[in-house]
Amino acid sequence: MEEIIGILAGVFTTVAAVPQIFRAWKTKKVDDVSPKMFLVLTIGVLLWTLYGIMKQDAPIIITNGISTLLNITMLVLILKFKKK
Amino acid sequence: MEEIIGILAGVFTTVAAVPQIFRAWKTKKVDDVSPKMFLVLTIGVLLWTLYGIMKQDAPIIITNGISTLLNITMLVLILKFKKK
Repeated sequence: MEEIIGILAGVFTTVAAVPQIFRAWKTKKVDDVSPKMFLVLTIGVLLWTLYGIMKQDAPIIITNGISTLLNITMLVLILKFKKK
Repeated sequence: MEEIIGILAGVFTTVAAVPQIFRAWKTKKVDDVSPKMFLVLTIGVLLWTLYGIMKQDAPIIITNGISTLLNITMLVLILKFKKK
């Protein structure tokens, strides 16, 4: 039971960035999105990935590795679509 | 060393929502923010909190409990400032 909750929790927090990426991609607008949020989040999940590597914990590495890639994608979209 | 990385990672991923909350509060605009992202994220961190309670793991409960409150705050701001 705990494991199912943990896996579900990991899936939800990992995929959360996907709808935001699609929205930014579709609308080409990111005016109301905080770049700081995605910068801090990217550093955070990158540190979690590093923590997973140190602990040799595959689930931590996989979920946070995917999160890192998704959040970097969103950062790139923010830089791309930001009003000059 | 691993512990320091883990604590830093937890702090970063927990406080990430704060700049987004301030931005929405200040600009009163959330048009480019994905409500789905914050809904999925809230469910995710709520499940992590539940997981922490089941495992009786204080750091998981504290960081994800704070995240849950922050993400619910952002969801409320999205509902409040969303264009009708």
